[in-house]
Amino acid sequence: MKKSLIALAVLTASGISFAQSSVTMFGVVDAAYAKGTGSLTDKTQLKNSGHNSSRFGVRGTEDLGGGLKASFWLEAGVNNDDGSGSGTSNNNQTAPGADPVINARNQGLTFNRRSTVSLEGSFGEVRLGRDYTPQFWTETAFDPFGTNGVGTNIAFNKGGNTGVRASNSIGYLSPSFNGVKVWAQTYMGENASTDAAKAGDGNAIRVTYDAGPLSLAYATSSTKQATAGQKNETSNIAASYDFGMIKLMAQSNKTKVTGAADIDGFVVGATAPLGSGYARVALSETDKAGVKSNLTAIGYVYGLSKRTDLYATYARVANKGGATAALNGATTGADQSSTGYDFGIKHAF
Amino acid sequence: MKKSLIALAVLTASGISFAQSSVTMFGVVDAAYAKGTGSLTDKTQLKNSGHNSSRFGVRGTEDLGGGLKASFWLEAGVNNDDGSGSGTSNNNQTAPGADPVINARNQGLTFNRRSTVSLEGSFGEVRLGRDYTPQFWTETAFDPFGTNGVGTNIAFNKGGNTGVRASNSIGYLSPSFNGVKVWAQTYMGENASTDAAKAGDGNAIRVTYDAGPLSLAYATSSTKQATAGQKNETSNIAASYDFGMIKLMAQSNKTKVTGAADIDGFVVGATAPLGSGYARVALSETDKAGVKSNLTAIGYVYGLSKRTDLYATYARVANKGGATAALNGATTGADQSSTGYDFGIKHAF
Amino acid sequence: MKKSLIALAVLTASGISFAQSSVTMFGVVDAAYAKGTGSLTDKTQLKNSGHNSSRFGVRGTEDLGGGLKASFWLEAGVNNDDGSGSGTSNNNQTAPGADPVINARNQGLTFNRRSTVSLEGSFGEVRLGRDYTPQFWTETAFDPFGTNGVGTNIAFNKGGNTGVRASNSIGYLSPSFNGVKVWAQTYMGENASTDAAKAGDGNAIRVTYDAGPLSLAYATSSTKQATAGQKNETSNIAASYDFGMIKLMAQSNKTKVTGAADIDGFVVGATAPLGSGYARVALSETDKAGVKSNLTAIGYVYGLSKRTDLYATYARVANKGGATAALNGATTGADQSSTGYDFGIKHAF
Repeated sequence: MKKSLIALAVLTASGISFAQSSVTMFGVVDAAYAKGTGSLTDKTQLKNSGHNSSRFGVRGTEDLGGGLKASFWLEAGVNNDDGSGSGTSNNNQTAPGADPVINARNQGLTFNRRSTVSLEGSFGEVRLGRDYTPQFWTETAFDPFGTNGVGTNIAFNKGGNTGVRASNSIGYLSPSFNGVKVWAQTYMGENASTDAAKAGDGNAIRVTYDAGPLSLAYATSSTKQATAGQKNETSNIAASYDFGMIKLMAQSNKTKVTGAADIDGFVVGATAPLGSGYARVALSETDKAGVKSNLTAIGYVYGLSKRTDLYATYARVANKGGATAALNGATTGADQSSTGYDFGIKHAF
Repeated sequence: MKKSLIALAVLTASGISFAQSSVTMFGVVDAAYAKGTGSLTDKTQLKNSGHNSSRFGVRGTEDLGGGLKASFWLEAGVNNDDGSGSGTSNNNQTAPGADPVINARNQGLTFNRRSTVSLEGSFGEVRLGRDYTPQFWTETAFDPFGTNGVGTNIAFNKGGNTGVRASNSIGYLSPSFNGVKVWAQTYMGENASTDAAKAGDGNAIRVTYDAGPLSLAYATSSTKQATAGQKNETSNIAASYDFGMIKLMAQSNKTKVTGAADIDGFVVGATAPLGSGYARVALSETDKAGVKSNLTAIGYVYGLSKRTDLYATYARVANKGGATAALNGATTGADQSSTGYDFGIKHAF
Repeated sequence: MKKSLIALAVLTASGISFAQSSVTMFGVVDAAYAKGTGSLTDKTQLKNSGHNSSRFGVRGTEDLGGGLKASFWLEAGVNNDDGSGSGTSNNNQTAPGADPVINARNQGLTFNRRSTVSLEGSFGEVRLGRDYTPQFWTETAFDPFGTNGVGTNIAFNKGGNTGVRASNSIGYLSPSFNGVKVWAQTYMGENASTDAAKAGDGNAIRVTYDAGPLSLAYATSSTKQATAGQKNETSNIAASYDFGMIKLMAQSNKTKVTGAADIDGFVVGATAPLGSGYARVALSETDKAGVKSNLTAIGYVYGLSKRTDLYATYARVANKGGATAALNGATTGADQSSTGYDFGIKHAF
């Protein structure tokens, strides 16, 4: 993302300026005219976040000297089609912001997207608070559509309540060792010690390798469920290579939930510079014991500036084995297809 | 409003400054000691927004070159008497933020007042998101009290859930053609295609003419209701003339809801510079099949600075035909009157 | 607190800069690994606000000339372990933000910590809105742990729904008369005039004396309860003396609720500079008709900078007369003890 910085002079009570320190206000306001068509019902909406997730945040870094830094990041999701915020989960046991009455009109802003404080140095970064889960980061980074809008890969987000983010997390992000980085995370459901299930407790790790045009990533997570002994375990592996004219990427995902059939998924896709922007295309699949959906998406992003894009995406999902996946709020019958498109503007500040 | 700007330097990743771009943090904190008196009960409160609506927001504009601009506006209502925010509506089918438990103590900040992204050029402005409805703008602009506080005209806000603002809107605001401007807006209830009523879908248009001291405005709107075939239709027409010593203004409103009696209303009023501030007076009426309320209001605004005002307003409402309108939280019996006053301070930043 | 200021140039529409005016964005992000142990259950959490209360706010002052100033303060509590906000109370009759479903995951940001507008001059300050109650300020100022984290004194917050803050308040803060200051406050429950109880109406006053190393404080409050004629009355008296090598402090509290046994409490404690930070220790007690808890706490704060601290606190509570007070989410049986610790980082911006 290209972000603007609010100019600032950080002043102590004695008037000394810390030139190394900074606080930044930032955000994205992204709105799209969106249509979904299915065999049962269609829907037309003004949606948000068709290209980048709409948000409002404040973040900053303080140089503590000796290579040490303290930093914070507070970032709220914004549904700019109606002005509401997005909920969170205080214990990783409930789906983020799922109460229907509140969601319908009253959900206030929360720093649901990220609320962390970190200590950074040559040893890496220790990060505390609500943060992305490592395995999600692979799912979005190796998707040409960045898990936003109608083109979002259909293998995405099978990790339950911590599929994208976790609250009460402690993370460690290593520095780069010749291109290899490690991100380890533990998060807590904050149950009483006598609780048998310990729902919401979990661990995740991600290892990445970057060398010029090549990127590789492997991640895995395990989260305890509401029934004692049950777990949601995800793993994914991904690669991308940037040939300049075109960047190719692929990922493969597996989700194992105790007592349920495994969910397998994959994404293959590409982005390519074209005119004043870039084109993108992706194929993705999710398959749970033969209940299977395949999504094809194609889109173009036109850059009005580093901060502002116009974009258009068209996608089609095909269902098999009784699957009913549908796009942009449409509904479709078993084994019927659904199509959808977004046409919008993304503005970052 | 006079607003302060936070200084800023907008920086790209490459360190180039866009001198033409800006991000502004802004707000109003307005508090008043308010009393309402009726035949049944009186009430004393510390209220907010007696003169200007209290708010907290961030907005900005980016110059894209060639006369094109991108802009955003995120603005939250703030109840600064208790610190709570205000709810919104995600589908124009529910009244904004109406859940009583949440409202009592838990309503978080939402960008309910406005959350939009725009593309502007010589062609005008295309605006997407949650915005004011065009007909509201006439109701507030031609009211000496700006639809704030105990002096708010009683003909105000008969447009149902979209009486003031609409979510999921697409608006077009024309440039000025010799003083004539057009603002057209469509908004979506985001119902399934099989829904018969399509509640929350609507359209509105406003045409204004400004020439020196003269302003004229006409607006109309139509919004589908929860029962198929039913509509809420509003229209208003207004004029003001600034003689320098005094500015006179008047508006006439009509609201037609399918299956109900029409609601007719009007406002006549004036503002006049006086000392270090200005005086204002208004008469307004609402009449639904003879159930009729008349409000008289008089007030004075004392300017401490461009940003800060002290203000006092006194109002009286008279009821006929069984009407029970009352002021500032008082309650009054059928055909009884009610009086109220606000005494407060407004500070903008 | 040491706060950073966002640089700013306050501009009028005509481009004139008010050099005397300022708007500041500020906050604290404080996270701790926290453990509580009791005879029944233990709990491990990532908590927020173990040292200073996490928050996000905007405040500013405008110089009106002639010694007069207008100012505002909007400050939201932030639960940065999960990103949620904190609720408030619109009438001082409900506990702030107590709805369990909303709190679990959906509580948006409110300016619950403070939302005020003030007019200040040589006469002192008149402050309107949601604010701290005067008696709370003594409870926190004369506690070595500042009523944050596991070391928070156990005599704290017996004042019911207005124990810490009140909505709809009008306050007057005097200037210093040879070290003596007075803070008087009235707040409203905003009941109808026919309501017999007038719950949430109240008054409070605090008198302080500061002379070099010596500080003295006395405060009292009275708040009407839900049953007519019933009151919650608090009073406290406190002193501290800074010997340089060590600062000693003590407070004594009494709470009288109509129809219930009185609650007596006290705190004695000390802070002392030590290495790159300071050590702190406190003993506190609460006693309601022999149901009694005693808390012992010891901690160290290591200053990484003026804005950033590492901290560790250990506390133990002993119960008598059937009391079951427990620390950091643990539960303990009647007359059993509980221990807890926090280990965390506080970063202010």
